[in-house]
Amino acid sequence: MDRIEEAIERIESLDEAAMDSAKARQDTLTKPRGSLGVLEDISVRIAGITGDYMPDINDKVITTMAGDHGIVDEGVSAYPKEVTPQMVYNFINGGAGINVLARHIGARVVVVDMGVASDLEIKHSTENFIDSKIGYGTANMTKGAAMTYEDANKSIEAGIVVLEDEMANGMDIVGVGDMGIGNTTPSSAITAFITGEPVEKVTGRGTGLDDEGLRMKIEQLKKALVLNTPSREDAIDILAKIGGFEIGGMAGVILAAASHRIPVVVDGFISGAAALIAYELSPRIKDYLIASHLSVEAGHRAILNHIGLEPLFNLNMRLGEGTGAALGISIVEASCKILREMATFEEAGVPDKE
Amino acid sequence: MDRIEEAIERIESLDEAAMDSAKARQDTLTKPRGSLGVLEDISVRIAGITGDYMPDINDKVITTMAGDHGIVDEGVSAYPKEVTPQMVYNFINGGAGINVLARHIGARVVVVDMGVASDLEIKHSTENFIDSKIGYGTANMTKGAAMTYEDANKSIEAGIVVLEDEMANGMDIVGVGDMGIGNTTPSSAITAFITGEPVEKVTGRGTGLDDEGLRMKIEQLKKALVLNTPSREDAIDILAKIGGFEIGGMAGVILAAASHRIPVVVDGFISGAAALIAYELSPRIKDYLIASHLSVEAGHRAILNHIGLEPLFNLNMRLGEGTGAALGISIVEASCKILREMATFEEAGVPDKE
Repeated sequence: MDRIEEAIERIESLDEAAMDSAKARQDTLTKPRGSLGVLEDISVRIAGITGDYMPDINDKVITTMAGDHGIVDEGVSAYPKEVTPQMVYNFINGGAGINVLARHIGARVVVVDMGVASDLEIKHSTENFIDSKIGYGTANMTKGAAMTYEDANKSIEAGIVVLEDEMANGMDIVGVGDMGIGNTTPSSAITAFITGEPVEKVTGRGTGLDDEGLRMKIEQLKKALVLNTPSREDAIDILAKIGGFEIGGMAGVILAAASHRIPVVVDGFISGAAALIAYELSPRIKDYLIASHLSVEAGHRAILNHIGLEPLFNLNMRLGEGTGAALGISIVEASCKILREMATFEEAGVPDKE
Repeated sequence: MDRIEEAIERIESLDEAAMDSAKARQDTLTKPRGSLGVLEDISVRIAGITGDYMPDINDKVITTMAGDHGIVDEGVSAYPKEVTPQMVYNFINGGAGINVLARHIGARVVVVDMGVASDLEIKHSTENFIDSKIGYGTANMTKGAAMTYEDANKSIEAGIVVLEDEMANGMDIVGVGDMGIGNTTPSSAITAFITGEPVEKVTGRGTGLDDEGLRMKIEQLKKALVLNTPSREDAIDILAKIGGFEIGGMAGVILAAASHRIPVVVDGFISGAAALIAYELSPRIKDYLIASHLSVEAGHRAILNHIGLEPLFNLNMRLGEGTGAALGISIVEASCKILREMATFEEAGVPDKE
């Protein structure tokens, strides 16, 4: 049995007893019942995920996975491919958006090369970097499959390994983020294929295409979807034909997190596409997923609707990297602190509702 | 000239030069332009408020103002009046929702007795408590004005004093929150009167009224609005006839913050009603206000629409105390860190858009 099957088999349902206890405790805290709304709901779910009715979120991790995409040759991105490795260096040096927001919430960022199209010059001693390169970017999916079936498997497995290795350093919650010039394109392909929505509806401007660029992107996507005919029953085949290495890696992180009862906060559209792949592999992951924000990118709502998730907030963000996940993790942490730290009516000597 | 007029006269427009510099800097940071959406917008506004194009949010303060309401005698609240002083003790002991969330974001809570209907037993040495009591709860506004015109003036002035005194301890941003059994009722009265919306539309269940309770509350509100006829041109008269001491105090905090170029984050419905009073006194405060969340309480949207604010998030909260403001402050802080700490394309050696 391979690591993917192992992870899937380990995913259990939520701990109902822990959820009942958490809910009962919320109702004794010094506030009108339900008055903290979604914060109360999340805290109860984290109890169900962790099996602890007063969960403690300390170690926060964001995995930011990078990969390149052959379809960029067709002009589907406003930025050149060279940005991907330079942004990886930026992550390692702490200068990117995700670094700032991770510091803000007290999380550590783990940067993973899943498939950057060049050799990265990174010192072996760099603590926050993991080399899981499956290939030098995917192939151009308008001309054939993005990757082999074997590499699709490997990319998901690599994500599982990253998550399990990082657990050793402490992990109460994990956020998944991405970096990869062109990666909204495979994400739109995956979203259109899995949700059944028309390509036009789930394709956006990515880093900033103009109208003509968007039209071209949709055309190339349609071409790729006609040429590649993934099996609707095999998510790994979908990933292989129209996906990306970092998307596979993030799907692996999600599966592994769910299998180890670790809450996993998804970011925006690209990590959402990874969640779709993971959801096709095992719908049980849904219980472990928290959608942070609603991305500006056109297809994100279709992903959330397909899985049945509601995002915590919408700040018109579309950066990726895990930036939305970082803010989402802070809200989840706040929800658990409410559950743990608030005084009860009895403790505070406050009269309860008449 | 009294303190209220002084504060109003000191309120300037935003610093356009600082905003232009902040916007220009945002566009050099290593992300597609605009990809951090509202975070970018807020950071630019904080630059305009503070006059600093790279604003630094360190000292965070939440003022939680408490008061009681005579109209509670008419059965408009699901909780008894005795809850107000007990919750003040809870704030001081650090056990309430606002304490937990303030700790989470690294803010200090300043608890203010604006008009609790009993003598509080609080040690003089309690650092985070300010006694600004204007009276022992308001009068029952179904039988006359809630307070005298003089007390309405005093309550706003007291809020100004609280803000200005607390500035000495460091204050880069302030959140306004409330506590007061029954205080959604004067807030609905103020909202209906100022926005012109029907009472039914801006009256909610507060801490948890049932259908019959809500019907009674609406009836009492209509009675109060017929009996009291505030001058539409005089916000202090509105506060006196149908307001509350803590609402006046919060209006004072808002005016003073704006007059000292300190960003002020409003919480939900009751602090929103205070913002309405402050807005009637000086529409210029709008530039200094950030709406944190959209409250479940029915009238909150009408307040935001009247002033022209968009909330940052909606987590179905309705606790008050400043809990939504706390989460909002954390987002504002994150936005300023993005502006200050992210590497530029040049610094990171990342190629910009083609």
